[in-house]
Order: sequence, then C-alpha cells, then structure tokens
Amino acid sequence: MKVLLTGFEPFLGMSENPTELVTKKLAGKTLLDMEITGHILPVDFQEASKRLITQVDKLQPDMIISLGVAAGRNRITPERIAINCMDGEPDNAGNIHQDKKIADNGPDGYFSTLPIRNLVDTLQQKGIPAGISNSAGTYLCNQIMYIARHHIETSDIDCLTGFIHMPAHHALAVENPKLPSWSLNDLTTAVEVILQELAITSKRAMI
Amino acid sequence: MKVLLTGFEPFLGMSENPTELVTKKLAGKTLLDMEITGHILPVDFQEASKRLITQVDKLQPDMIISLGVAAGRNRITPERIAINCMDGEPDNAGNIHQDKKIADNGPDGYFSTLPIRNLVDTLQQKGIPAGISNSAGTYLCNQIMYIARHHIETSDIDCLTGFIHMPAHHALAVENPKLPSWSLNDLTTAVEVILQELAITSKRAMI
Amino acid sequence: MKVLLTGFEPFLGMSENPTELVTKKLAGKTLLDMEITGHILPVDFQEASKRLITQVDKLQPDMIISLGVAAGRNRITPERIAINCMDGEPDNAGNIHQDKKIADNGPDGYFSTLPIRNLVDTLQQKGIPAGISNSAGTYLCNQIMYIARHHIETSDIDCLTGFIHMPAHHALAVENPKLPSWSLNDLTTAVEVILQELAITSKRAMI
Amino acid sequence: MKVLLTGFEPFLGMSENPTELVTKKLAGKTLLDMEITGHILPVDFQEASKRLITQVDKLQPDMIISLGVAAGRNRITPERIAINCMDGEPDNAGNIHQDKKIADNGPDGYFSTLPIRNLVDTLQQKGIPAGISNSAGTYLCNQIMYIARHHIETSDIDCLTGFIHMPAHHALAVENPKLPSWSLNDLTTAVEVILQELAITSKRAMI
Repeated sequence: MKVLLTGFEPFLGMSENPTELVTKKLAGKTLLDMEITGHILPVDFQEASKRLITQVDKLQPDMIISLGVAAGRNRITPERIAINCMDGEPDNAGNIHQDKKIADNGPDGYFSTLPIRNLVDTLQQKGIPAGISNSAGTYLCNQIMYIARHHIETSDIDCLTGFIHMPAHHALAVENPKLPSWSLNDLTTAVEVILQELAITSKRAMI
Repeated sequence: MKVLLTGFEPFLGMSENPTELVTKKLAGKTLLDMEITGHILPVDFQEASKRLITQVDKLQPDMIISLGVAAGRNRITPERIAINCMDGEPDNAGNIHQDKKIADNGPDGYFSTLPIRNLVDTLQQKGIPAGISNSAGTYLCNQIMYIARHHIETSDIDCLTGFIHMPAHHALAVENPKLPSWSLNDLTTAVEVILQELAITSKRAMI
Repeated sequence: MKVLLTGFEPFLGMSENPTELVTKKLAGKTLLDMEITGHILPVDFQEASKRLITQVDKLQPDMIISLGVAAGRNRITPERIAINCMDGEPDNAGNIHQDKKIADNGPDGYFSTLPIRNLVDTLQQKGIPAGISNSAGTYLCNQIMYIARHHIETSDIDCLTGFIHMPAHHALAVENPKLPSWSLNDLTTAVEVILQELAITSKRAMI
Repeated sequence: MKVLLTGFEPFLGMSENPTELVTKKLAGKTLLDMEITGHILPVDFQEASKRLITQVDKLQPDMIISLGVAAGRNRITPERIAINCMDGEPDNAGNIHQDKKIADNGPDGYFSTLPIRNLVDTLQQKGIPAGISNSAGTYLCNQIMYIARHHIETSDIDCLTGFIHMPAHHALAVENPKLPSWSLNDLTTAVEVILQELAITSKRAMI
C-alpha cells in the first residue's frame, strides 16, 4: 500500500512549519505494509495544486494524507469537509483571493473519505487529544484537501483522501505567547498513530 | 418582498435564546418593502426541519434568514456553508446523532445564497463587528441551513437562504463567565442592518 | 461626595480608547449626591502618575475610580490588587520597563479599597456581565491603581480607590477579529451602575 | 543544596494531576548538587498549608518550588506574586472561601523570590514555551505560594520560594476538548530545566 503524505513549507512569517518537519521524519518509512512517500508543498495557491496533482499521477497512491498546521488549535483535528472557496491572507507568492471558487464547476463541498471518527477515537484512546474539525478554513489547507478529492473524482484513480490539522510546535509558541503547542515528538507520534490505524483499517477493508 | 425570519428556542440548559427574543422583536415589522414573518423553531432535529418546510411552503418567502446563537463567538457571523451532517449534543427531545447525513442523497455541502461578503462589509462599516464563518457546526443551526437550501433546490421555489450566527446576549454571559456577549439591543440592531441591506440589494437585483 | 473618574488616551495603535469616551460622557454629571470629575490620563508611565497625583491633591476626592480597557476580556472586571511592578510594551512616549518597581520601598501589592464583590454582584443582578479580576497586569492600568493607593497611604488623604477594567468597544473589534466587545452605550451604563452603587454604599457607610 | 518540590493531588473532578506525576518522577533525584525532596499536597486549604509548613520545618530546604496545573494555560508560567486571598471553588474537603484572607495580618501580596525572568528566558531559549504570570489565582496554588513565603518571613528560615504553573497534560485534554496540553514528558523536562537553572544560579550567588 502506498501513501502520499504531504506537508507545507512555512508561511505568514512562521520560522518553521511543523508539518514539513513531521513529513520529512516519516518520509521513506514503511509502517506495517504502508510505504510513505513524503512531499512538501509550497504555500502558493497555484503551485501547490499543480504539484499535488503531479505527485498523485506519478505515485498512484492508495491514500493521500495531507498535513497542515492550525496555529491556535490545541489538538489533532482530522477535517470533515473541504469547501469550494479560496479566501484569506496572501500566499507566499503574494496571491490573494476573496470568496473565489477553487474549481469553477466543482461542488460546494467534499467530505473527507478517511475514517475520521475512527482516527479520532484511536488517538484519544492512546491518550493523544484529538477531535473532528468541521472547517479546514479557506486557505491552502482547504484548497489542497479540495483539490485532492476533486482530482480523484474527475480521474480514474481510486484513492482515499483527507486532511489532518495539527497544533503549532513549541518553536512557534516560543515566538507567539497565544499559541497552544506540542513538541515535534508528540506531533510525529500522532501522525504515526494515524498512519498505523489507516494501514490496519485498509487491510481489513480489503479482506 | 416576504422574508421568513427564524429563531430557536433555548437549548442545552440555556435560560433564554437571544435569537428567539430578536426574532419576536422583529416579527410583523416591515423594513423598507420587506415584510418580516417570524417563526421560532424547536431544538429538535426532526421537528425543526418539518416546521421550517411547512412555513416555507405556506409563506412562499423571497428569502429565508435563520438566526442561531453561537455561544463563544464575539461577532455577527453569516455562515458560508451548511454541510450534510448531524452530530453533537442531544437535542431538546433527547435525540442524538453522530456523523449522520441530513439528506441521504444530498450533496456534501450547500453554500449560502445570501450576499454574505456584502453583509459583513455593511455591518463593519456601521461599526458592528462581523465576519464570515466557514462552519455552522453540525447541530441544529447547520441542519436548518442545509434543509432550507435543500428544500428549495428540490422544489419549484425561488428563494435566497442563509444562516446568521450571533454572540450570546448578556443574560447568558451573566451565567457563564467564559462567554463574550452583546446586549439584546445591539443584537437586534445588527439583524435590522442585515435585513435592510438585503432589502436594498434585492431591489437592485430586481431592477 | 466627590469622585475622580479617570480614563486613558488610546495606546498601542488603538484608534480610540473606550475609557476616554466613557469618562468624557460622565464627567461633570452628578449621580445621586456624587459629583463626577473626569480626567483623561496619558499612556506614559511618568506623566500619568504625576497627573493623577496632581488631580488628587487638587480635587481632594472621596473616591478615585480609574477605568482601563482590557482588550480580550468579555466583561466588567473590578480589579482586586495592584502590584509593585512595571513591565510590558512601550508606553506612548516610548518608555519601556521590565520587572521594575513602581515605588522603591512600596509593598509588593495593594488591594483595592472599593467594595469589589458588591460591585460585581450588583452588575450581574442588573444583567451586566461582571467578575472580579485578580490581575491588572503590569502596564499603566496597574501602575495607576498602585500609585493611587500608594499616594493615599503616604499622605493625609482619606479616600477609596480602585480600578475597573472594561471590554473593548465595538469600534476596536471591527479592526481586530479576536476581540470581544460591547457597545459604548453598554460600557457607559455599566460605569453608571458602579458609580450609583458606590454612592449608595458610601452614604450607608457614613450613617 | 536541598529543594522541596511540591505537587498537588487531583481536584475538581480531574482524573490525574500532572504536578503529582511530575513531582513523583523527580523526587529523590539529584540534579547538579541539588537534592530534590518531593511532597504531594492535598487540595484542602487547611491541610495543605499545615503540611507545607511541617515539611519546610523538617527539611529546612534552600528552596521551595511548588507546582500547580493551570488548566487552560498553554505554557510554563512562573508566578510573580501571591495574594492574601482565598476564593473560588470548594476544595476537596468541601471548604469554600470567598474573599477571605490567608493570614489576618499578612501583607496584600508577596512577590516570588525566585529569579522568574531568568527562568522564563532559559526555558524559551531551550525551545520550551514560557512566560511570567501575574496572577496565581485565589485557590490553593496561590495559598501555598503565599504561605511558603509568609512562613519564611515570619520564621528564621532563609530560603527562596516560588510557584510554577504548568499546562494540563494530554490525559486531561483527552477528557476536555477546550484544554491546551503537553505530554508528561515535556512537562517533566520543563521542570528539570527550571531546577537545573536554579542550581546554577544559586551556586553563582553563593560564590
């Protein structure tokens, strides 16, 4: 089984992005039968989207798990839905969008096809705070989640997709007194638990 | 022009629901050419949905504006999207749902058809804090917003629909030290500003 | 009975300070037998302190009530204690202090001599969210509260003193999406309720 | 050099108190020349105070470091001041106090005698989010911090004292979705960094 795991480069003045660091730690590893291919996406609405599609077409993964940092959140939050909207702060290339559609003829929203309830329950049972989120926002995290599912729905690919938001890591909270944060170690463990659970669930589904 | 304005009865132990109080204050009034019909919905997944549909079919409104209280929010937040999901705390009838679809064959999400950006800009220009929200949650507020649009899409009715969340009113914050709150007076003014702007916008659209 | 009511000018980039606006609204009024003298203090550690002492010596008030805005708080919060410390952001004159004593030989802390529990209970009973705060911070609000009491303790003056923090007003929240806010009207009413209650309490104490 | 390190038992329905777990992990260890004696205090206004005094008199420590959990805080927060006030929720024995003095003739406040700025700077430099707190509240944490200093000031003992609040650990955040949290591992490391820095600082001070 092949997993495409994506993280993002830093943005909006952050010194580091924990999703880049976690993705690089896990890239190349095999968990159970799951081979993890890591890819770091740029925080650029146009480029990120192109790169994701290229990676998916090249790798033909069984699963796309995208990671994003949600500065201000206090736990691991698998996202329930991506919406057809780009809005918010400028990206790293300086592009800014307001209330703009990601895909002109795409549906208003796409649910995650990951077993998000199961992931949250598993994390919590292992003592890792988690909860389902009902909004991935309208910035790049949402866009990548939307694009991943939209690409699959409009291609021949059969693949589960979903997005996981994580808290800031301690390095970001040292700079910003308002942010809840976890150590990189805790964030990495949480993503490993998610991938292992997905490996187990997928195997069961195949039998 | 006819508007159906809905509020909710109290729920989850609240003593009062500001949306009930604001709806009752504005019901029966005419703002510009807009006749406001008010209706208080029960906090009961099944009943609320039935009642809303009955009201819409009876009144044949040009617009459905539903109000909900978002305890914890600090400003007026027109919702961008309703999602096909019921989840969360039990309703007043004791019914509880987890990750359940509102409409079995409905789309994952429905955008508001109100001019939400315009409403936010107008409120802010008048000194009333406002912002677009990207999640109406998964409780009754989201359900009513979803049902309103879904009913219209699956009927012959032509009608704008949307949902506006408001902060708690002071009476709720007196009981709960964590809640931001506004006076009922401020909340009512905000809804009047919204209705007036919708009346102006709709007239322009008709010319 | 004479009351010195102080507010502050704007600071840290704020366009307006609600305490200045409320103080100006109430200055010159008489509530019950209480004559209100208003004074707007500069956000300058040295100047604010000098000006307060000058006003107190000139007016010889029976009570000093100082108002400050606590951007981020959601209710009216009479402060319990002022501490002998200056710290935090630069003031409007560019002075910055870290862990510095206000009065070299002053005590570590001074409790408010206002009936703060009674004020909170009265506000809440009238439907105005309120709570005692246990920290006025280490910026000018704390300094003025400390100086007021310290001046009285080291002079012949007999006078009650205390500090009341209030939420941002809506104009500030329009600029900053994170801030809870009240209308100026609600903030002014809250201060009037406080002054009336103090007038009643003081009269009772004198009989 | 002898350090008395105190933690608290669980309270207000918590399943575990991270300060108890961290204290037990570090009790009996020697960091540099610092021998750590651990003691778990009951959440009982009367008993906690008695027990602390007994421990201090028995051990004659060079330093008293008390730990408390501040559910809702996102970082390590050395407290600046303890105030002469007991207030808030009932303790584990059911005792409840409102606006009551801890020591009838004690001062309004006592500053920590630990080098709190230095501790915060050291933690932050090591990538551990930290900040000075200006309020230890009015519950048992504040009481113990007040009593420790008050006992020293009214005895012949020469000893540094202070209080460190820490975030909830993950186990508490699994139960309560609002809480920021750290792993026990991160919390323990933070306290070790504090103790090591105090050992170094004290040695320097003695030379």
